[in-house]
Amino acid sequence: MPSPTPSPPTHPLYNHTPTNITSLITTINHPTPIPGTRDPETLASRSSTPHSPAPLPHQVPHYIFFPRSTDHVSRILKACHEKRVAVTSFAGGTSLGGAVAALWGGVCVDFGDMDAVGEVWWADLMVEVQAGVGWVALNRVLGEGREGDGKGLFWPVDPALGARVGGMIAMSCSGTNAYRYGTIKNWIISMTVVLANGTIIKTRNRPLKSSAGYDLNHLIIGSEGTLALVTEAVLNSRRYRGICMSGLLLLLLCGMVSLEAIELADREAMFAIEKSGLARGRVWDVAPTLFLKFAGSEGAVREQIEFVREMCARFPGGGLVAASNEMEFVDTVWGGRKCLANALVAMKNDPGDLFLSTDAAVPSSKMALLVEESNRIVREEGDSSWFCASVGHVGDGNVHTAIVCPAAEKDRAGVLVEKIQRLALELEGTITGEHGVGLKLRDLLEEEVGKEGVDVMRKIKFALDPRGILNPDKVVRLEAGY
Amino acid sequence: MPSPTPSPPTHPLYNHTPTNITSLITTINHPTPIPGTRDPETLASRSSTPHSPAPLPHQVPHYIFFPRSTDHVSRILKACHEKRVAVTSFAGGTSLGGAVAALWGGVCVDFGDMDAVGEVWWADLMVEVQAGVGWVALNRVLGEGREGDGKGLFWPVDPALGARVGGMIAMSCSGTNAYRYGTIKNWIISMTVVLANGTIIKTRNRPLKSSAGYDLNHLIIGSEGTLALVTEAVLNSRRYRGICMSGLLLLLLCGMVSLEAIELADREAMFAIEKSGLARGRVWDVAPTLFLKFAGSEGAVREQIEFVREMCARFPGGGLVAASNEMEFVDTVWGGRKCLANALVAMKNDPGDLFLSTDAAVPSSKMALLVEESNRIVREEGDSSWFCASVGHVGDGNVHTAIVCPAAEKDRAGVLVEKIQRLALELEGTITGEHGVGLKLRDLLEEEVGKEGVDVMRKIKFALDPRGILNPDKVVRLEAGY
Repeated sequence: MPSPTPSPPTHPLYNHTPTNITSLITTINHPTPIPGTRDPETLASRSSTPHSPAPLPHQVPHYIFFPRSTDHVSRILKACHEKRVAVTSFAGGTSLGGAVAALWGGVCVDFGDMDAVGEVWWADLMVEVQAGVGWVALNRVLGEGREGDGKGLFWPVDPALGARVGGMIAMSCSGTNAYRYGTIKNWIISMTVVLANGTIIKTRNRPLKSSAGYDLNHLIIGSEGTLALVTEAVLNSRRYRGICMSGLLLLLLCGMVSLEAIELADREAMFAIEKSGLARGRVWDVAPTLFLKFAGSEGAVREQIEFVREMCARFPGGGLVAASNEMEFVDTVWGGRKCLANALVAMKNDPGDLFLSTDAAVPSSKMALLVEESNRIVREEGDSSWFCASVGHVGDGNVHTAIVCPAAEKDRAGVLVEKIQRLALELEGTITGEHGVGLKLRDLLEEEVGKEGVDVMRKIKFALDPRGILNPDKVVRLEAGY
Repeated sequence: MPSPTPSPPTHPLYNHTPTNITSLITTINHPTPIPGTRDPETLASRSSTPHSPAPLPHQVPHYIFFPRSTDHVSRILKACHEKRVAVTSFAGGTSLGGAVAALWGGVCVDFGDMDAVGEVWWADLMVEVQAGVGWVALNRVLGEGREGDGKGLFWPVDPALGARVGGMIAMSCSGTNAYRYGTIKNWIISMTVVLANGTIIKTRNRPLKSSAGYDLNHLIIGSEGTLALVTEAVLNSRRYRGICMSGLLLLLLCGMVSLEAIELADREAMFAIEKSGLARGRVWDVAPTLFLKFAGSEGAVREQIEFVREMCARFPGGGLVAASNEMEFVDTVWGGRKCLANALVAMKNDPGDLFLSTDAAVPSSKMALLVEESNRIVREEGDSSWFCASVGHVGDGNVHTAIVCPAAEKDRAGVLVEKIQRLALELEGTITGEHGVGLKLRDLLEEEVGKEGVDVMRKIKFALDPRGILNPDKVVRLEAGY
């Protein structure tokens, strides 16, 4: 069959001869075929849209694949990389400015058939989707909530109605909700992406925040399909959040309460505060405690405090102590939280004692488990003379378990810290929520983002710093595998 | 003088012989010296801190520079790059995990003397700082407000007390306020950074949001001094925001009102809504209009509506029409905003007419000027038969000026669109707030982030996609300068 339109322009980087394209399609379809088409109208529609026409009429892809999975996309890119065929991608087709145009032809990857909504983690406000899911359809699913409980969620990114998640990520989109909720950059937890050579990487785990290496999420968001293709994503959404921890009410938020900060100190941490004498103006109960900060107009703050007081009273052992004014809050209530770090260090029996701390962060629903298990690991596997306490940034699911022990026990305590960091990974979290990789976490970083993820980071490192002079051997080692 | 400690380990990438280090220092200090020291105690203190000891005692820098400016840092890095000397950096020294350790020795850049707070843009809630400014000191300056007006700001990132902005950015830090305000990733507008070879780049302009190419901000944040050194930053802060536009009250926010969305439609846009007949259930005044969305408990929403109503009444021509319930809001009030895009396209006299739109975003304080000037450019320099209207995402300072004109006028209208995009750059904004670079904005991107910025993006592109197969020639061209 003769080509229905004149061929696209040629570029020395690509081999788009009919023979090579045919050979590419055969390779990709072996052993199992991936749906695709050469239909001229379909080809043209993926390169040129009413809102975003291609500059020249013959700038159309030679072939379109309709993958059903990340593995399909990986097979397509691996072959295109080997055979030097250009790749454009297409999701909802609502972008402006020509990002979908197949300037040099090649293969188009159309995500229209990857439109499954996967797991919803209702308590974490997170949902997993394939790249072809539309934001309108997604919000229909989320809005219905878990069967019968009416706890609906919504994902607040609202660009053109036809937009699909993969394209929205590629274009770094926003919409009218961006004023209140920010752009899509704020609503992506992690992505599964396929690199140019077919390598599949996951950009990060499921904690709300992470300091684990270079920010691959933000590098891919807005890269318009030029750095990698997004095949799946975990999104965070809004509305209901509830965490319960061992019978202790940790927090109840349902849009009524908008707190400024929620900080957890476990029993041992409160013991340290009392023992240190650093908290002025108030004697604290030695019991697991949440420090809450409210803000807003006086009426709004009062309303929120009463709401939380009522919630706390429903749980055994629960109760709320509220400051009656800002001065009292700063001096005595928040003062308790502020002295915490020093109070923990003050638990050293000897100035030479070690103070070690973890920095694990996990999805909210798993934070209670992380606190309990971290404490259990140190108490059961460490020495009974050691001091151990956990404090946490509750909104982030970020927990610091502190260990104070004699200097001679450094290695033994280090093993336990590493065990807690691996536990965080098992709980879909990160080894470092806020402290960074530095030196100590370089090897564990490979367990978190994979050897492939660290390789990408190293490539970026040397692209920007070819002689490796900047803070050498931090975050990623200068050479792999030593 | 003999070396006070054993030398650090050697690495084949670096030349840390005494001769080379001495020659480096001479080079850097020519023609004007940059303060520095070889004092052994100072050297040790920049590599090893109580919270973060270096693994080995002799892992200390050979020399410390105390630069006073971005230009100083550029001179230091240029020479280190040429002479293959490793570089670590130091700000507040509060990081954990060994990020400051000078594993292979070399030069340490200490930002302690770069602690100036620069310009404060009170209406934009933005402030410019040098990398050595501490967050506690910064908040003291911001909290005092403009002399006499009491409109204080605060920057909500609150890690260890001694932390300084440059180190906080390098380590991607957070603190107790992160629950409410997010980590430092949310509080950086732009950075001036020095690359390994001494090249100075600015990561972005001053709009709140931008889709202009790869996200260099997030790539540098959390890179722990391994990709570039941050020398200056523009931070966004909180509290008071006010924008007035030509006597029309655009918006008043002072912590009392927390809106979900603020959308602007100018007179012509409202005319299009009325003419199109697309807005159901309500006849709109043909006058500049703001669409506001409130959310929260019923009491809170009522309180906010009354507050805004009172504010509006103070301005000539101001007034507030509020929906009395959610159904009315969705159907008639927000329905007006939702039909806007279609109403503008419906202004075509002929199906073949062109619909062009800008995507400029500027700092909030300059949004009114952008709207007025964009409209003026089209009305004065375009044809009087064209239709022109501006709509805006007010919270983001993102304005779309739409032009409807005959297809034959494509080039003439395109010149005006480009003029508006350049105007956005003059107003410290971006050529694309949300639509992306695609094909059309590649050349203007170079005016926005500089040739050096585009070069960095191209290096990242080819680091991840060495054969250039992914969406070729988008965002950045495959080759520079064609």
